Formats: sequence, C-alpha cells, structure tokens
Amino acid sequence: MTDTVKYVLPEDRIPKTWYNILADLPEPPPPVLHPGTGQPIGPDDLAPLFPMALIGQEVSMDREIEIPEPVREIYRQWRPSPLYRARRLEQALDTPAKIYYKYEGVSPTGSHKPNTAVAQAFYNMDAGVKRITTETGAGQWGSSLAFAGSIFGLEIDVYMVKVSFQQKPYRKALMEAFGARCVASPSEETESGRAILKETPDSTGSLGIAISEAVEMAAQRDDTKYALGSVLNHVLTHQTVVGQEAIEQMNMAGNYPDILVGCTGGGSNFAGLVNPFLGEQLRGGPKVRVVAVEPAACPSLTRGKYAYDFGDTGHLTPLVKMHTLGSTFVPPGFHAGGLRYHGMAPMVSHIHELGLIEARAYEQTECFAAGVQFARAEGIVPAPEATHAVKGAIDEALKCKEAGTGRTILFNLCGHGHFDMQAYTDYFAGKLTDQHYDESELAMALAGLPSVAAAAE
Amino acid sequence: MTDTVKYVLPEDRIPKTWYNILADLPEPPPPVLHPGTGQPIGPDDLAPLFPMALIGQEVSMDREIEIPEPVREIYRQWRPSPLYRARRLEQALDTPAKIYYKYEGVSPTGSHKPNTAVAQAFYNMDAGVKRITTETGAGQWGSSLAFAGSIFGLEIDVYMVKVSFQQKPYRKALMEAFGARCVASPSEETESGRAILKETPDSTGSLGIAISEAVEMAAQRDDTKYALGSVLNHVLTHQTVVGQEAIEQMNMAGNYPDILVGCTGGGSNFAGLVNPFLGEQLRGGPKVRVVAVEPAACPSLTRGKYAYDFGDTGHLTPLVKMHTLGSTFVPPGFHAGGLRYHGMAPMVSHIHELGLIEARAYEQTECFAAGVQFARAEGIVPAPEATHAVKGAIDEALKCKEAGTGRTILFNLCGHGHFDMQAYTDYFAGKLTDQHYDESELAMALAGLPSVAAAAE
Repeated sequence: MTDTVKYVLPEDRIPKTWYNILADLPEPPPPVLHPGTGQPIGPDDLAPLFPMALIGQEVSMDREIEIPEPVREIYRQWRPSPLYRARRLEQALDTPAKIYYKYEGVSPTGSHKPNTAVAQAFYNMDAGVKRITTETGAGQWGSSLAFAGSIFGLEIDVYMVKVSFQQKPYRKALMEAFGARCVASPSEETESGRAILKETPDSTGSLGIAISEAVEMAAQRDDTKYALGSVLNHVLTHQTVVGQEAIEQMNMAGNYPDILVGCTGGGSNFAGLVNPFLGEQLRGGPKVRVVAVEPAACPSLTRGKYAYDFGDTGHLTPLVKMHTLGSTFVPPGFHAGGLRYHGMAPMVSHIHELGLIEARAYEQTECFAAGVQFARAEGIVPAPEATHAVKGAIDEALKCKEAGTGRTILFNLCGHGHFDMQAYTDYFAGKLTDQHYDESELAMALAGLPSVAAAAE
Repeated sequence: MTDTVKYVLPEDRIPKTWYNILADLPEPPPPVLHPGTGQPIGPDDLAPLFPMALIGQEVSMDREIEIPEPVREIYRQWRPSPLYRARRLEQALDTPAKIYYKYEGVSPTGSHKPNTAVAQAFYNMDAGVKRITTETGAGQWGSSLAFAGSIFGLEIDVYMVKVSFQQKPYRKALMEAFGARCVASPSEETESGRAILKETPDSTGSLGIAISEAVEMAAQRDDTKYALGSVLNHVLTHQTVVGQEAIEQMNMAGNYPDILVGCTGGGSNFAGLVNPFLGEQLRGGPKVRVVAVEPAACPSLTRGKYAYDFGDTGHLTPLVKMHTLGSTFVPPGFHAGGLRYHGMAPMVSHIHELGLIEARAYEQTECFAAGVQFARAEGIVPAPEATHAVKGAIDEALKCKEAGTGRTILFNLCGHGHFDMQAYTDYFAGKLTDQHYDESELAMALAGLPSVAAAAE
C-alpha cells in the first residue's frame, strides 16, 4: 500500500482561454478544400452546419481563445480534473519511471468529451439554434452532447454506430436520461443511411457513415446545426483545458514530463493533453517526447496515407488533409469504439508531419491486459479507448526499467470504463480477440481517395 | 442555464476521526444477543468473523474514533467529496427551497461504500487476514470491497444476490477487474445456499441469504474473515466522513439544513450523512428534520416491527433489535438492490425509536421519474437507490413551494447509476413497474420472529 498522490487545482485555476497550437507552429496546416471546386472553402461554406462563433475558432490563428463565462461555469461541475501519480502502478511494474495521469473520467459522462460538448452547445444556443445532430462511436460523445444539450435547452439527435449501439446499450439509456434521441446508424432516416442499408443490409456502421447521417439531417433544417466530437480544430482546441491544467499540476508536483502518451481516434483527447505542452516546447520551453497510441485495427497514423479525404463515408463534408485509411474503410468492430475512425484530426496529422509526435499501434487484448493491471493497482477501470494510453505508458515505464532511467511519463486517462464492462466481461471470459482488417480492403479504400485531392496537392 | 455552485474542501479537511453517535444519545441501544442463550454477546463471540479492531468499534461508546492514516491516504483518491447546490433543479421545480446534495458517486466504484470498505480491508490486513467473504445486493458494496482488497492485497469472495447478479452483470465484471471472485447467491458452495436451492431451486436470493453464505464461509477458515457493507455500528460510523464534510461545506455555503433526506436500505449511507448533524443537535446545536426514504417494496422502517431478529436468513448471526420485516422475508426483485434488506441498522432503528428521525416509503417508478428529472437538471444520473433520496428531496421542495417557505434541504446522492442503466432502459421502455410483496408473506415472516427475542424483550 502506497500513499495516494493527487494534485488538485482550485476552481479559479480552470483555464480562462483555450490554447490554439496553430499560432505556434512553424507553418500552417494545408487548407480545407471544397470537394467540387478543389478550392479552399470559406466560412460561408460551413455556415449551414456550424454557428459562426465555432467557424471562427475553426480557422483562427490566435494563440488564445477566450472561454465564455457560462462554459467555465459548467466546467466547474467537475473541473479542474485531478492529476494523479500512479505510485501503486509504478510499484507493480518495479520501474524507476515516474508515471502520472490526468483523469478526465470525473466528468458527468465519464470522459473528456463534455469539455467541447458544453462549449459547442453554448455557442449553438447563443446563435439561436434549437436542435443539434451528431454521430457517436462508443457513445461517449453522444452522451456528452446530450448532457450539454439538457443544460442549454437544446434538442439532441444522435446517430450511433450500430455495432456500438448493440455492444453498449447503457450509453443509449444515458443519452435518453439526458433527454436526447439516439438512433442506430446506418438508419432509415437519411439518404446516406438508406443507401448503405440497400447495399449492405447488415452493415455494423462506422463513424464515417454516422457523420454522413448527422450532417445530412442538419443541412435540411434552418433551426438545426451539426456538432462533431473530435477531428476539427475547434474541438481539439476546446480540449486544451486538459493539458493547461496538467502543466500547472505537474508544476505542483515539482516535475515535468519527459514523455507524453495519449490514445488517438479522432485526436481530440490526445491534442487536448499534448498541445499545451508542445506549445511550451515551440516557444522555447522543455522538449517532450510525444507518443500517440492507436488501435492496430484502425491505424490511421501508422498505416494511413497523409492525403486529402472526406471526413465521412457519404462524402458530404469538405476535403481535409489528414492521415487516412480512406473514407470507405470500415474498421472491424473492436471495443474501443471511440477510436474507430478512418482518419486523424488534420491538426494532429499536421503536427505529426512536422515531426513533433510519434505514433504506435496496439492490439486490443494487450490493451485490456494493461487496463486490468491499471485497475488493480490504481482502482480505476479505464475505458477501452483509454487502455491504449495505459498500455503505451506501461511500455514506456518498462523501457525505463530496462534502461535503468527514471523518466517522467504523463498520460491522459481520458475516461472510465463503467459503460464498457461488457468488454471486460468478454476479456475475462477469453472471448475478446484481436481484430484485423483485410489488407485488400485497406488498399481499395486508399485507392479510392478523391482525385480532387491529388489535383490540389 | 444557472451557475454551478460546488463546495470543495481541501484535502487536509478529510476528517481525522469517525463520529460515533452512541456517545451523544440519551440512552444506549439494546444489546446484541446470543441466539442460543438470549444473553448479550461479548467480543469473543464475534472474533471468528471480524478483526478485534472492528469489534472494538462495534461496541465503542467513544464519540470520536481515529481514522488510521493509511485509510485517510486512500480516502484522498476521491475525498473530500463535493457538495453541490442543485440550482438548476430548484429552477425546474420553481421552488423557494434551497436544495443541496452531497455527492458520493466520485469514489472509484461510484458510491459511498468505499468509505467503509477501505477501513475494513485495512483492519483485516493489519490483523493478518488473507481473505474476506461478503455479500452484495446491487453490487456497490461487493465492488467497493473488491477495490479495497486490491489495494491492501486481500482475496475477496463476494456472494451476490442472484436477481442483481442477473440484472447487473457489469458489477460482476467490475469486481473481477479488481481481482475479486463473484458468485451468484444462493450458491452450491455453502450449506445455507444448498438448503435454499433444495427448497426453492429458482430462488432469486436476498441479502439475508447472501449474508448467510458469506458468514458460513468465513467461519470455516482461520485466515478468512467476514465483512458487511451496512447495518453494523462500525460500518455506519465509518460513513460519517460524509456528514462531517457536509457540515463544513454547508458552513462554506453560509447555510445550514432544515431538512436532511437520505435513502435507507441497511442504513449506512443515511447514517453517514445524518449522524454528524444529529450529533450537533444532541449537543445543543440547531435542530434538523430528518427524513429516511425507503422502498415501498421493502419497507422495514414504515411497515416492519421493532424487535430482535437475525441479520441473515440462515440464522447464523447474533440477534439484533431493529426494524425488521422478518429474516425470512424475501423482497420482490426491484431495481434498487442496495435497499433490498429485511432489516434496518440497529443504530438507525434506535434513533428512530428515540424520535430523532421520520420515515417514508416510495414506489420505484416515482423514484425513477425523480431520478430522470434530476439527471436532466443536474447532469448526474443517480443510482436506483439514490433516486429514493432524490424523490424525497423533491417532495420536500414542492411542499416548500406550496407553503411558500424557503427551507434548506440537504440530501445524500450516495451513488451514480452508471452500472444500473438497464433499469433506466426498462423505465424508458415502460417495462419498469412497481413491485409489491404479498401481505400474507410479510405477516408470516413477522410471525416467525425468533422467540428468544420475545424472552429478552
């Protein structure tokens, strides 16, 4: 038994601004293109989908973006989130490394997602929007937007990837508890959904498909906008409250990370933690090694192509340059549903191309093993997504042990696994296996990347 | 949208002692009796089941019991827990009442149970115990002891009431994630279990049965003790960290409760909140009205008899004087599994007899309706048990509205509902109905109260 080491900030240390790393990068990311013209899009192209305040943030080059006071007020329900030193895990690993983790599972829905859900709901409410449509994978985002919608009095319609809808019925109940509507995707409600179901009646869905459905519904009604839980610049920027708090908390600990680890699906929890540290480095501060951990079954950073692609399967979105497996790539139905996206946030992709981060892929069984080891040492059961970061941190700590060096590791424990216990049940029963995509399907998806992209490159 | 009002204490305000209300009551509770002799039992009678430190606390009349530093260290992982003002709920109810809630869902297992689980595991570890057996209803206690066991290196065997085992598979997975073993009760592992199964092969179990199984297993091995998650004096005393923190937080709020509300099953979360406030009152401080809310399907305080009874169905425990429905009473399988116990903590029963608290029973559908109203206002989905306290608080707030009086209400939100979303799913689908016991079965259970009790009374 070892002492608990927790670093708690007072409420007035909730950040007053979000940090936009674009201001500090040596070069801007490639522009977002209109799929028809191949030309950079402007704010007006996005206006049917997003309120103007968020569009402004999407294209902003300002380093600091003020957090509206009503958003900070809601953040106060669970923020500042705690940062722990994983002393009992260190002991179990017998490593000289110091392992810290920032814990976002204390939010009302148990993950980092409300950090941006509350902000997006606020700006939509402020712009007079009545209804928001969105997609969700594992359900963390959908339930977070449902929570935020209930606070700001907005209707929320969630298209949930069918395989997760079936695996995680509790997430649907959580969304309904907050008053939202949750539909399995692909659905019969949209053109995109019907087209998929016609071709593949037993489709288990994907984030790309669910995005198409949500975008289509939002585009049809004036009082309805669309919200995305990751990938976009403004979403990643909202998450930087995580890393900004972590910097202060590492200061309290009298320590600074040598290595940062985060899991990556769309990229927002990862960027939320690492961008503020990378910002310090870019402005002449200490250098950090940054490791992005992704699932081997959906490895956009390690196996994808850095190219222009659609954000969705139905090709309703603009073209963004990102690490992508191809918008038609449907990842197998592994449990970390929040990491089942064919692309990577353009901002994270750009940072990767600039050489600021490295990437690594793990199979799901080794991640669950790491998750169980973490739970037994630290008393928190990680979400399947978060087990990827746990696995990455444990591997770094074991490397330190081998090398006899006491590095400081910080990772983002972006959510708890309370709604994902079926996955743990399957794991304990030996029913959970590693999932693999078909190489030829990946090759086909990559071959199908849009040609306008090639023209623009 | 209204501001979040949260009161957070610094870590050094985690209480240093537990509060034992027996020191302040005008008279001591009736003694615990040996079922064979009808005579008061002594520490030696309990020694096969509990480490001596806990037996000492069970019979202590000291007002303050020091919390060992290793226990406070583990408390620091989530304590002090937050106290919120439910401003958005007040607005939704349009009440002049001020509603506050203490939130224990921030613990690693999402309820108040780790407050005593950590203490009990510590004392057992300290006494050289290797294994602890216990029962669990909804699984909140079992998973909490599993968590505590993983921290102090103890084996944990949990007998889980079968109906909950089937309704809440995620709780079992959580226990296993912490390395514990979880068995559906009645089981084939014990004499008591086999006897029940022989008579009622399709028995859905009860806390009384599960207690028999756990006690039986503990009594058989020298390295094994038993732990109970509620009912006993020392368990209730451990929970007083909740109320002690709440008193300080109400001071921070510049307010003091007129009305306290808690849900009651075994009585520990209720006593944990209210005992410290009652202590203030008993020592000449402000008077509070205290409302205990119990399920109409298992109404020990409102329909039970205050009499000597066994704590378990198999009649392996000593006799305690409490409000009881009879140890053979098997409540219907409603969702608030943590409230499905035939008796009430002797300490709470005694306080009730002294006229310090009042009791009230609610049906489960009205409690779920209150839980959903709370979730949509406050962003936290309450555990089914906690919805009873929510319902009680809402009703008090509505009475204030009717009377036009702005009373201050404080209730204990003892846990979140993340592991109970199936109940919400059923509620939304209209499948959740109120459950009723058979009056003749209750009469029979009451008629079967042990005769030795009558002799001693």
